[in-house]
Amino acid sequence: MTPLFNKVAIIGVGLIGGSLAKAAKRKNLFKDVVGIARNERNLKKGIELGAIDSYTTHLTEGLIDAELVIVATPSGVIVDLIRKIVPHVPNGCIITDVGSIKRDIVKGVEGFIPDNVFFIGGHPIAGKEDSGIDAACSSLFVGHKCILTPTSKTDPNALQRIKTMWEKVGSIVMLMDMAEHDEIFAAVSHLPHIVAFSLINAIIRMEDIREDILNYSAGGLKDFTRVAASDPVMWRDISMMNKDNILNSISHFLSSLEDIKRAIVQGDSEKLVFEFEKSKALRISL
Amino acid sequence: MTPLFNKVAIIGVGLIGGSLAKAAKRKNLFKDVVGIARNERNLKKGIELGAIDSYTTHLTEGLIDAELVIVATPSGVIVDLIRKIVPHVPNGCIITDVGSIKRDIVKGVEGFIPDNVFFIGGHPIAGKEDSGIDAACSSLFVGHKCILTPTSKTDPNALQRIKTMWEKVGSIVMLMDMAEHDEIFAAVSHLPHIVAFSLINAIIRMEDIREDILNYSAGGLKDFTRVAASDPVMWRDISMMNKDNILNSISHFLSSLEDIKRAIVQGDSEKLVFEFEKSKALRISL
Repeated sequence: MTPLFNKVAIIGVGLIGGSLAKAAKRKNLFKDVVGIARNERNLKKGIELGAIDSYTTHLTEGLIDAELVIVATPSGVIVDLIRKIVPHVPNGCIITDVGSIKRDIVKGVEGFIPDNVFFIGGHPIAGKEDSGIDAACSSLFVGHKCILTPTSKTDPNALQRIKTMWEKVGSIVMLMDMAEHDEIFAAVSHLPHIVAFSLINAIIRMEDIREDILNYSAGGLKDFTRVAASDPVMWRDISMMNKDNILNSISHFLSSLEDIKRAIVQGDSEKLVFEFEKSKALRISL
Repeated sequence: MTPLFNKVAIIGVGLIGGSLAKAAKRKNLFKDVVGIARNERNLKKGIELGAIDSYTTHLTEGLIDAELVIVATPSGVIVDLIRKIVPHVPNGCIITDVGSIKRDIVKGVEGFIPDNVFFIGGHPIAGKEDSGIDAACSSLFVGHKCILTPTSKTDPNALQRIKTMWEKVGSIVMLMDMAEHDEIFAAVSHLPHIVAFSLINAIIRMEDIREDILNYSAGGLKDFTRVAASDPVMWRDISMMNKDNILNSISHFLSSLEDIKRAIVQGDSEKLVFEFEKSKALRISL
């Protein structure tokens, strides 16, 4: 079987980059993978895990002959990084990313990318509490959605090849408008994380009730602490880059909380059951 | 082995009542258990599961010769129910409950309980998403805390027997002041549930973004929907009966959310990392 790409450069060899490389190597989608990162330990680990074949800490060196460049760094640095690499990639090279927000990244890159280099914005809906190359696993994407956000400027052939790559590692690929992507994920992903962070920080504020207060937590709180243990830098970038949608989600959340709070203040038991039933009904419908 | 109690009446044969009876029967702690409830289907199921030996839908009938009465109904009806049964229980009978809030229940019951009947307030920190007798399981309490909230009026012998009962079914029993109990659980249990209910209701508000918005939810949101699927009546009762502590917890939560929101509005990336790091650090310390 001919590999889908001969020479692939992966910038950022963490959970997502490492898992994608590992899965693609295993499926023979990539012939030769070079890892590019600043942290040499991660690169060495990437070789150990069979995710990459070689590595370099020099950005442009790794780009020689690259048919595909996968940018798997935190969202906040993706646009600048692509700006830096574009002059150094071969003619016809495809660049893709795995950032959790899409509008700012895709718009940013399309602002400067030349006609002979192709960019496809991507967001694999995978991830787990643990981050970093040590948590990389070739089955990370199996059965999970991967959103690609083509625009009117997108090259159909490049899109098809990136779509095939994600499908071959097990993803269910969906195409979506970049702005709609950011709106949806503000609601179903960014808001829950910010709420979880706020909840855990509130519990920390209440530790004066009793020093060992957390020893009394049961199922509910443990689920939240898991979510709130996500990577702070990743969530800083998402919060900064999807600001308007996140603030809109927060205001919907505050309205919902206000409804419940008012019912508690007023001792309105019917209203409380009504509000709590809504959530339960949704869960059952899932 | 002599059973701990010969004749036991369990009022409310749901997840907690059914599981406790089943576990106690299996450990030979209870010789003869009568289930008391309005719903005959649950009672029949309780017999099928080996949790109870007989049942009645007539409250006072089931109390004849009862050495122990376990009130395992929703918190909101516990005090009134105990008020009704007290005239019908034998001299020396111990009454205990499993309500998630303690101050209103213990204070309420101590307001009218006669000297020849003993009350011990209890709260097993167990439970799962599913409720009802069908979810009952004799290992529900194993390794989980059970809080007992004695007061200056509590009979030490009755307390010891209830403590032994919970320990024998696998609980780690802790004694705690009733007011402190309600303050702690407002923070680590009631607040997370109310936040989860609010979050899911906010997502419902945002379904106009895209009808199938929930199809895009990943790990984070799924954990919240699980919490928000808890029993609405139970949470109504908790919200009504632990009002002040819950409102206090909500205000701490709102302050934490406001801190993050302000940092997003101001684009304060350092503050965002600081807020997100706090949560992560707590998780790691757990």
